[in-house]
Amino acid sequence: MADKKLVEAITSMEEDFAQWYTDVVKKAELIDYTSVKGCMVFKPAGYAIWELIQKQLDERFKETGVENVYLPMFIPESLLEKEKDHVEGFAPEVAWVTHGGLQPLQERLCVRPTSETLFCDFYKNDVQSYRDLPKVYNQWCSVVRWEKETRPFLRSREFLWQEGHTAHATAEEAEERTIQMLNVYAKFCEEVLAIPVIKGQKTDKEKFAGAEATYTIEALMHDGKALQSGTSHNFGDGFAKAFGIQYTDRDNKLQYVHQTSWGMTTRLIGAVIMVHGDDSGLVLPPLVAPTQVMVVPIQQKKEGVLDKAYELKERISKYEGSRMRVKVDDSDKSPGWKFSECEMRGIPVRVEIGPKDMAEGKCVLVRRDTREKISCTLDNVEEEVAKLLRTMQAEMLERARNHRDEHTYVAKTMEEFEKLFTEKAGFVKAMWCGNQECEDIIKEKLSVTSRCMPFEQDKLADTCVCCGKPAAKMVYWGKAY
Amino acid sequence: MADKKLVEAITSMEEDFAQWYTDVVKKAELIDYTSVKGCMVFKPAGYAIWELIQKQLDERFKETGVENVYLPMFIPESLLEKEKDHVEGFAPEVAWVTHGGLQPLQERLCVRPTSETLFCDFYKNDVQSYRDLPKVYNQWCSVVRWEKETRPFLRSREFLWQEGHTAHATAEEAEERTIQMLNVYAKFCEEVLAIPVIKGQKTDKEKFAGAEATYTIEALMHDGKALQSGTSHNFGDGFAKAFGIQYTDRDNKLQYVHQTSWGMTTRLIGAVIMVHGDDSGLVLPPLVAPTQVMVVPIQQKKEGVLDKAYELKERISKYEGSRMRVKVDDSDKSPGWKFSECEMRGIPVRVEIGPKDMAEGKCVLVRRDTREKISCTLDNVEEEVAKLLRTMQAEMLERARNHRDEHTYVAKTMEEFEKLFTEKAGFVKAMWCGNQECEDIIKEKLSVTSRCMPFEQDKLADTCVCCGKPAAKMVYWGKAY
Repeated sequence: MADKKLVEAITSMEEDFAQWYTDVVKKAELIDYTSVKGCMVFKPAGYAIWELIQKQLDERFKETGVENVYLPMFIPESLLEKEKDHVEGFAPEVAWVTHGGLQPLQERLCVRPTSETLFCDFYKNDVQSYRDLPKVYNQWCSVVRWEKETRPFLRSREFLWQEGHTAHATAEEAEERTIQMLNVYAKFCEEVLAIPVIKGQKTDKEKFAGAEATYTIEALMHDGKALQSGTSHNFGDGFAKAFGIQYTDRDNKLQYVHQTSWGMTTRLIGAVIMVHGDDSGLVLPPLVAPTQVMVVPIQQKKEGVLDKAYELKERISKYEGSRMRVKVDDSDKSPGWKFSECEMRGIPVRVEIGPKDMAEGKCVLVRRDTREKISCTLDNVEEEVAKLLRTMQAEMLERARNHRDEHTYVAKTMEEFEKLFTEKAGFVKAMWCGNQECEDIIKEKLSVTSRCMPFEQDKLADTCVCCGKPAAKMVYWGKAY
Repeated sequence: MADKKLVEAITSMEEDFAQWYTDVVKKAELIDYTSVKGCMVFKPAGYAIWELIQKQLDERFKETGVENVYLPMFIPESLLEKEKDHVEGFAPEVAWVTHGGLQPLQERLCVRPTSETLFCDFYKNDVQSYRDLPKVYNQWCSVVRWEKETRPFLRSREFLWQEGHTAHATAEEAEERTIQMLNVYAKFCEEVLAIPVIKGQKTDKEKFAGAEATYTIEALMHDGKALQSGTSHNFGDGFAKAFGIQYTDRDNKLQYVHQTSWGMTTRLIGAVIMVHGDDSGLVLPPLVAPTQVMVVPIQQKKEGVLDKAYELKERISKYEGSRMRVKVDDSDKSPGWKFSECEMRGIPVRVEIGPKDMAEGKCVLVRRDTREKISCTLDNVEEEVAKLLRTMQAEMLERARNHRDEHTYVAKTMEEFEKLFTEKAGFVKAMWCGNQECEDIIKEKLSVTSRCMPFEQDKLADTCVCCGKPAAKMVYWGKAY
C-alpha cells in the first residue's frame, strides 16, 4: 500500500492539471527553481532522463550519418542580422552580452537562441566544392530565449537541446534530409518515449523564422493540449544567399547550398510527464527510466532478506547482457514509504521480497503503469522482469495512442468546431482554405492554433471550417503549451 | 610512403613547436576559427575526441557515486559577489549580460566562468539534514572567461568542461573526496590518454580563488612545458559560511557543510596533441581515437580488393565484442595520400591490403606511433589488431613517462636552477621555503611558476633554492602553457 502522506502531497490531475504537473516535477525531484529568473536546476533524477534521451537519440542520428560538432555560444549582432526573417523572429527574445571583463565590447554578442547564423558563417569557409557536401552536423548544447512566462521543461529562458544543421548540393537532398530527420524524431518518440505523434507541416504563420518549410511532430497530452515535440526545417537556399555559402559543382560552376535544421529539446521530458503520469506521480517508459527496477525488501531486518534483495539485483542487472538498471532500496524507511517513492519517481517495476515470499520461493512484481501485481517464482525473476519491461514499453505506447485517438475530433462547420473546443479537450481535425486570416480569426475566438497540416490528409469537407471558401488542406487544431 | 604535399604542410616541432601545434590542429581538422573572437568551432574530428573523453571520464565518475545535474549558465552579480576571494578572482574575466530581449535587466548576469556560487545557492535550499549529505554532483557544460590571449584547446574564451561540486558533513569527508577525484583524474590521464602526471598541491599563490587547498595533476609536454591537466579544490566551510549552507546533524545541531569542486576541460585534447604528436601530425592513444583502425585498399580497382577490405573491417569491428572503431578509406585518392591522411589524423593502426597481400594470405599493419610495419596473416587479423592497440596504448604511456623523467631535473642552488631553465626545457625539482616572495622572484627572473608541491616529497637539500632559508617543501617548477 502506498503511503498516504507522500501521495496526498500532489494535487490530482482532475482537480488542476497545471498544479499536478508542477507538483510532480518537484516531488519526483526532477527540477528545482533558482535565483536566476526563468532558469531551472536539472536535479539528478531529471538530468538522468535527459542523458537517456541524448544517448538513444544520438545513436539514431549517427546511424543516418550525423557528426557532432560544437560551435560558440555567442553570436555577434551583425551576424544575427544577416537573414532578415530570422533576426525579426529572434532579436526580441535574446540575451545580450555587452561587456567582457571590465571592458565594453565593440560589438554586442547575443547568447545563441539557435545557431543557424553561426553554422552559416562556418559553412561559408568550410564548404568549397561538391566534394565537401553534404555536411550533416549536429550539436548538443543549451540555448537562451528571454521568455516572459516560464514552466519547468516546457518553456524556460535557458533550455537544453540538440540542433542539427545540414548543407546539401541540391534542393531535393535538403528536402529528403528534412523529412528523414522528422521521421527519426517520430520513431524516437514512439519507440523510446512511448508517445505517438502526428507528422505534418506547419502553416506559414507557424513556421520557423527564415524557413521555407517547417515540419513538426505534434503530441497530445493527458489534458488534451497539444505539444510541439520536434521540428525540422528546410531553408532552401535563403540562408546560403544571405551568407554567401557557395560551392563549385562537377561542372565547375558556382552554386548555392541548400540547408536544413532540426531540433528536439528538454521539453520532451515535459511530454513524458504529461502523457504517462498519474495521480501517484511520474510514470516513466522503461527505455528512459534511470532506475528501471527497484527491489524493495520487506522486513529487511529478518535474516537473509537483504542478501536475497541484493542477489536479485545482481541477477536482474546481469541478465543476458540486458543492462537493466536496478537498485535496492535498503534505506530505513518503511516499505509503504518506499512504495510511494517508487511510484512518485515513476520507476517501472518494483520487486517486493520478504521472508514469506522467500519461504514460497517467490517474489511480487508490481507494474508502475497499471499497478498490477504479479507473483513470480524466484528462479526466473530476471527473465520475467525483462519481459515485463518490454510489455510495459509497448502497452504504454498503445494506451497513449488510444487516448490520443479518443481525443481527436472532426469538425465540418464552425459551430461544431466551437462546440468541440468548448466542451472537449483534444485535437480537432478540420478543413482550411489556406489563408492566414482564418487562422487569425480562429486563434482570436478560441485560443487554438493550427498544429500542423498532417502528411496523411483526409478530405473531411469541401470548404474551410472558418470562411466557407474552398478547402485546401486538412489541419490539426489544438490548444498549445 | 606518405605523400609529401600533406606532410610538408606542417612546420616541424623542432623548428617551431607553437606553429607545429597550430598546424596540426588545423590540418587534422580538429578546430576552426570563428567570427567570434577567442571562440572556436570543434569540428567532427575534434569533438569526437571530446565525446570519448566524456564517456570514459563520466563512467569513472559514476563508479564513485557521482550524479550529473545541470545548473543555469547565468549568475546574478549579487550571487557572484558573495564569496570575497572568489569574486576577486573571477570578476575581471567574465562576460556580462545586461539586456534580455529589448529590455535592460534590473541586475546584470554573468555567463558562468565556473559554478561554485550557483551550486552554493542550490545547496542552501537542497541540504537540510545530515540525511541529505553527501551531495556529489557534476555537470558537463561550457564556461566563459574573457581571456586576452587565446590558443586552440589550451585557452579560449569559451571552453567545454566538467565541474564537480560536492557538499559533505565533515571536513575529513571533503578532503577525502578532493583527493579521490584527483586520483580519478590521474588514473584517467594515464590509462586513457597515456599521459603520466605529477600529483600534488598548489601553493597558496597558485590556488583557486576561494579554495582552502587546490590539488593538481601536472603533465609535461613534448617541448618541455608544463600543462595543468586537472584540479581538485577543497573549500572547507568558506563558501558554506558565505552562502549559509547549514544542515542539522544527528544531535540536532546546525552545522556548516564542507565543499569541494574539481574540473577537467577540453584542454586535455591539447595535452594529447602535445604529448604524443610528431612531425607527421596527430598521434592518438587508441582509447580516445574516434577511428582506431583504417583499412586502406591498395589497387582497389582490382577484383576482390575492396570486398576484402570491407570484410576485414567487418571482422575487426565485431571481434569478441571489442567494439573497435574501424573504417575503410575507399575514396578515389591515391594510397600515398590516404596514408598521409591517416597519419595526420593520428589513426592508431592502418591496415594495408592489396592483390599481392591477398595472394599471400596476408596484410600489412602499420602502427602510427612507431611507424613499424607488421606482416599479418589474414586469418587472425582481428586478434592481431586488438593486441596491437593494447600494446600501443601501454607503450605510448611508457614513452611519455620516459620523456617526462628524462626532462625532470634537480636544482640545489639558484645557479643550477637558472642554468637548467636557460639550457634545458622540463620540470625542475627544487626546495622551497614556503614564502610567496621566493615564488615571485623566481617568476620575475625566469618566467617559471611553481607547478605543485608533489605528494611524493624528496628532501633534495636543506635550504630554499631561492632565499637560502630552511626548506619547507620540494616543488616542481616549470614553464606553463
